Formats: sequence, structure tokens, C-alpha cells
Amino acid sequence: MCLWFTILLFQPDMEFILARTIEVLSATPGAVRSLIGELSDEWIASPSRDDWGPFDVVGHLIHAEHTDWIPRARVILDQGEDRNFPPFDRFGHFEMVQGKTMSQLLDEFAAARRHSLDTLAGWNLSEDPLDLQGIHPEFGPVTLRQLLATWPVHDLTHLRQIATSMAKQYDSAVGPWKEYLSILK
Amino acid sequence: MCLWFTILLFQPDMEFILARTIEVLSATPGAVRSLIGELSDEWIASPSRDDWGPFDVVGHLIHAEHTDWIPRARVILDQGEDRNFPPFDRFGHFEMVQGKTMSQLLDEFAAARRHSLDTLAGWNLSEDPLDLQGIHPEFGPVTLRQLLATWPVHDLTHLRQIATSMAKQYDSAVGPWKEYLSILK
Repeated sequence: MCLWFTILLFQPDMEFILARTIEVLSATPGAVRSLIGELSDEWIASPSRDDWGPFDVVGHLIHAEHTDWIPRARVILDQGEDRNFPPFDRFGHFEMVQGKTMSQLLDEFAAARRHSLDTLAGWNLSEDPLDLQGIHPEFGPVTLRQLLATWPVHDLTHLRQIATSMAKQYDSAVGPWKEYLSILK
Repeated sequence: MCLWFTILLFQPDMEFILARTIEVLSATPGAVRSLIGELSDEWIASPSRDDWGPFDVVGHLIHAEHTDWIPRARVILDQGEDRNFPPFDRFGHFEMVQGKTMSQLLDEFAAARRHSLDTLAGWNLSEDPLDLQGIHPEFGPVTLRQLLATWPVHDLTHLRQIATSMAKQYDSAVGPWKEYLSILK
């Protein structure tokens, strides 16, 4: 692929396409496992309850898989009387991860994601239901299309958080290079 | 691993350890491949010459493997009369990637990284040579330890860039969630 072809091909703001979305959702568990599955504990621990290392990030991704994406999509697809999403607890994984190893969490995330994608595939969604709405506890009406677009972006946000958290461990070890490394700013 | 153990284990600024560094360097090619190896072209193209998508990022990582890390380490280890690093061209990969597929670049990156790590292992470095210095073209004297610490942080910087570039493709597709997604800010 030459550079100009690359540029011509690029659309600055891609339209939501379910099949493209599933490509990313399918890739995340393997990417996270490849990145952190063989690392020593020093790389994966969290500095604090609010500043997560890879261990807590994977816990959070599992928790979201169980209580956020598919459950909220169900609320929308059911179109029942109450279309409010149950609120999502961003600290909800802390209890669930206790006593578990990184490897166990990576297995759990892969299994939970596979189950979510099987459920999604089973719905065999056409374009119409993507416009159905549910009610987000903080910003009101959102469509199923927006919920499903947010899912891979949430994955990528946390992959970025894993990379940033690891890089910061070498904040002073890099010496004068720090000025050139945006991830350490 | 319980939360408190996690916190106790954490060292906010990890000391450079060669074996820990190699853990990350070994993981990167697989992590990048798992993340982008099966994606459609829409996800991987670059918006511009300065704003790289995954395709150009992998090209850049290969170019750095050939012209930056190991060659600069050699300059330091040789301790010859001229200890200046040759400058690194951050656009140096553009010609090299022309006509190649994403899959070819991922293979090239994995092979180049394997070769680099074999070279590094062959040096069988003890602590002493890690304090030897070379001259960076912009900020002067740097140690081998700092160069080797910067290498995995550079990987993580570009993994973060890949995640950010992909997320931005759904900038408007996520609707009101945009406010909550730091990666889109």
C-alpha cells in the first residue's frame, strides 16, 4: 500500500459499521494477552485505587463485559417501559479480582468477550434496530448504534491506559529521552 | 492478587532491569499483530504524513529496529573516537513501506525485533557497560541503560498511538459518549 493510496483510502471519521466494530472487539482480548500475559508483577500492579495498572484494567474490562455492553443493548432491544440503563460501577471489579492471577483474568476476559460476541451475532441485527434508543443515567437518550460504537473505543481507551501505565514505570530510567516521549508527559 | 497486595507491590518508578525490559520488547510484535493483524484497511490507514495510522506506525517501528536501538547501542559499546549517534529519520520508513501489505510489515517487524533481541542476548551485558555513554544528536551524553530503557517506552508510545488513531475513527459514531472517552479528547 503506497502512501498516497493510504491517504486516499482514509476517511477521517468512519461511519459505524457493525462488521468493522466486531473486528476490533474480537481482537482486544488477544492483544491484551500478548502485551501483558508474560510480564512480571512489577509491570502490572496498580499505583492506587484510581490509577490502574494492567491488572485492574483487565478486571474492569471483564466487569464491563458482564454489566455494561450486552446488558445495556438488551435494555434497548427489549424496548420495555423502563429503558433506563442500570448505572455502571467503575470500581465494581475490585472485589471480583481479589485472589485471582493475571492469567486467570485474561482467560475470563477472553471467555466473557467471546460470549458477548456470540450473543451479538445471535441477534442478527439489521440497520433498523441500531436506531432504537435507551436512556443513559447521565446524558439521556442514546442509540444502540452509539452504544456499540463506544464499546471498541472503550477497549482502545483501556489498551492505551495499559501502555501508559507501563511506560510510566520507566519515567526516570529513560533519562533525557523523557522530553521526547509524549506518553510520559 | 488482592488490592492491598497490589499496592504494596507497586514501585512508582521502577529501576531499569534488563530482563524486565526484554519482557516488554518481546511482547510488542505479538501485541501489535493481535490488535491490527485482522483489521480492514479503513482502520489502519494514516490521515496524513504527520498523523500516522497503524500501517505507518509499524513501518516506523521496523525502521527504528534497523537504524536506532541496536546501531546506537553498538556506538556506545564500541567506545570508539566518535560516539555520536547517527540522527534518526522519523519519516525514514515511508519509502520502505511502499507496496507492502500490513501482514508483510507485521512479519518484518517480528523478524527485526527477534534479530535485535538475539543481538542483545549475544552481548551478555553485565551492569558495568550499562553506564557507558554515547552522544545523542540533540541532548548530548546518554547511557546505554537510558537507551535500553527508552526502547520499550518507545514501543508503548506507538502502541498508544495505534489505539488512539483507531479510536478517533469513531469520534462522531459514539455520540454523547465522546465526553467520557479521554482517548477522543
